[in-house]
Amino acid sequence: MRVPTIEDVRAAARRIEGIAVRTPLVRNDALDAAVGARVFVKAECLQRGGAFKMRGAANALAALAPEVRARGVLAFSSGNHAIAVATAARYFGVSAVIVMPSDAPNIKRERTLAMGAEIVSYDRVSESREAIGARLSAERGLALIKPFDDPNVIAGQGTLGLEIAAELAPDIVLTPASGGGLASGVALALPGARIIAVEPEGHDDIARTLALGSIQRNAPGIRSICDGLLTEQMGEITFAIARERFERAVAVSNQAVLRAMKFAFLNLKLVLEPSGAAALAALLEGGLDVRGKTVAIIASGGNVDAETFKRALDAC
Amino acid sequence: MRVPTIEDVRAAARRIEGIAVRTPLVRNDALDAAVGARVFVKAECLQRGGAFKMRGAANALAALAPEVRARGVLAFSSGNHAIAVATAARYFGVSAVIVMPSDAPNIKRERTLAMGAEIVSYDRVSESREAIGARLSAERGLALIKPFDDPNVIAGQGTLGLEIAAELAPDIVLTPASGGGLASGVALALPGARIIAVEPEGHDDIARTLALGSIQRNAPGIRSICDGLLTEQMGEITFAIARERFERAVAVSNQAVLRAMKFAFLNLKLVLEPSGAAALAALLEGGLDVRGKTVAIIASGGNVDAETFKRALDAC
Repeated sequence: MRVPTIEDVRAAARRIEGIAVRTPLVRNDALDAAVGARVFVKAECLQRGGAFKMRGAANALAALAPEVRARGVLAFSSGNHAIAVATAARYFGVSAVIVMPSDAPNIKRERTLAMGAEIVSYDRVSESREAIGARLSAERGLALIKPFDDPNVIAGQGTLGLEIAAELAPDIVLTPASGGGLASGVALALPGARIIAVEPEGHDDIARTLALGSIQRNAPGIRSICDGLLTEQMGEITFAIARERFERAVAVSNQAVLRAMKFAFLNLKLVLEPSGAAALAALLEGGLDVRGKTVAIIASGGNVDAETFKRALDAC
Repeated sequence: MRVPTIEDVRAAARRIEGIAVRTPLVRNDALDAAVGARVFVKAECLQRGGAFKMRGAANALAALAPEVRARGVLAFSSGNHAIAVATAARYFGVSAVIVMPSDAPNIKRERTLAMGAEIVSYDRVSESREAIGARLSAERGLALIKPFDDPNVIAGQGTLGLEIAAELAPDIVLTPASGGGLASGVALALPGARIIAVEPEGHDDIARTLALGSIQRNAPGIRSICDGLLTEQMGEITFAIARERFERAVAVSNQAVLRAMKFAFLNLKLVLEPSGAAALAALLEGGLDVRGKTVAIIASGGNVDAETFKRALDAC
């Protein structure tokens, strides 16, 4: 197991320049006033593909040997990693096959297809995506791009932390976390910040993992509106970083997430998907004391169906 | 009549630093592909107060003599100018009175109140806002901050054009226009660009003004979903700039605007109000040939009610 360092993140930033874009840090008076802090929203919904996943996928594909990459790539994903791998594959001119759960949001399915990828569907409860992936990989020689537990993917996601560091030195970073690729990458890039992971209520493996000091799993079949945060457990590499760097994990309810999406609509003027609003929800309703602090929150993505967004607009 | 120049815009940029914020230029692959151009979206919905109006208001208040400003300020506005003047007044620690039509969107009314301003309502069809304003100004010694036909306001709005110029040299700029403060300010800041004004269908005074070479009016009582683009006619100063610099005006229908809002939701991940989506609507459906060009579009604001946004999400 190779645990990446901030040097890997810096190398990733050079490698993905021109594939992923630098996203803005958004300030908002109402948000600062609501929590009594200086808050910077890293608007990764404005990333190419609509989510931070572009960074890790681009770095992972860039790091493949050209002759390996040329055979095509394979990914398992509920959505944003799929879009990202498909987009990066198109950038490099290679084929992509995505193994996607049958209940993935339509918008993510459509974007993946629009990027020219092939989708293989599976049932999230009854089928093993790993078995499907292993078969495809063996049959077609595809290179697996893991969603999080890969040094290049972690380093790629961490590049957004470097972009934060270029503009401010946050005391606290709130980041959504599930497999932990984003959160651990950001932790590498911002060694001076307190890292708080945000996960869906009822899907609190990271809180238990940190408390017990070993990787804990979620019960299968648990649902949350945060479709991007339903990984069964952390990876070995992300856990190695998390145990050192995550201060704690905070859980957010579906209703808190919907209210945060509405807050972002009304105040930030950003479209956030549920997973992308999780850190904002934790900031607004997570009971954290951030008064007087400089806080960065990761608004990790914006790929949300109109129907789900309407639910957020009706939230109260 | 004093017509501002690019030097006034540069002075405004220095004056409003720290009050208004620099907004990002957003790129999107789907948008580029849809129109065959390199498109840069100036995301003024991310401006303080949710719209570009902050720039002009901040510059106008900053330009007042301190003893004049201290007596308080007055504005007529359907919304975004109101929020901007209220926010700038709060920044300078002076009072603000806003004369607002009774049918202004709730979100704009609430934001104005939240910024500590006093609202005086009037009926858009039967009452004269000018008469109400003149009375308030006489009684209370308030300084009028005009919404567009003022050199400082025009120069302030133009600062967003300077921010565009710092990153690219657009061939074409599409900007919403009504009174013309934004469009003429942007024209000053980008002397090398072709300026295309976008106005609501049925409210096409700018097209007629440009064609006839004199200021034309809209019939009173005309409605459009673009509540920020319903000014009766251009001003003397904005017309003086427009006649020299606007290449043409393009009209957009309510449905085209709603579809553009939906496009921004799905692809850009930005919340745009109808007026803020007008330039995008013109780009997507205005029949302009922009193939191969570098195009900047001004997404001028994002202050939209949830109900109107739902209409956009349902547009097809």
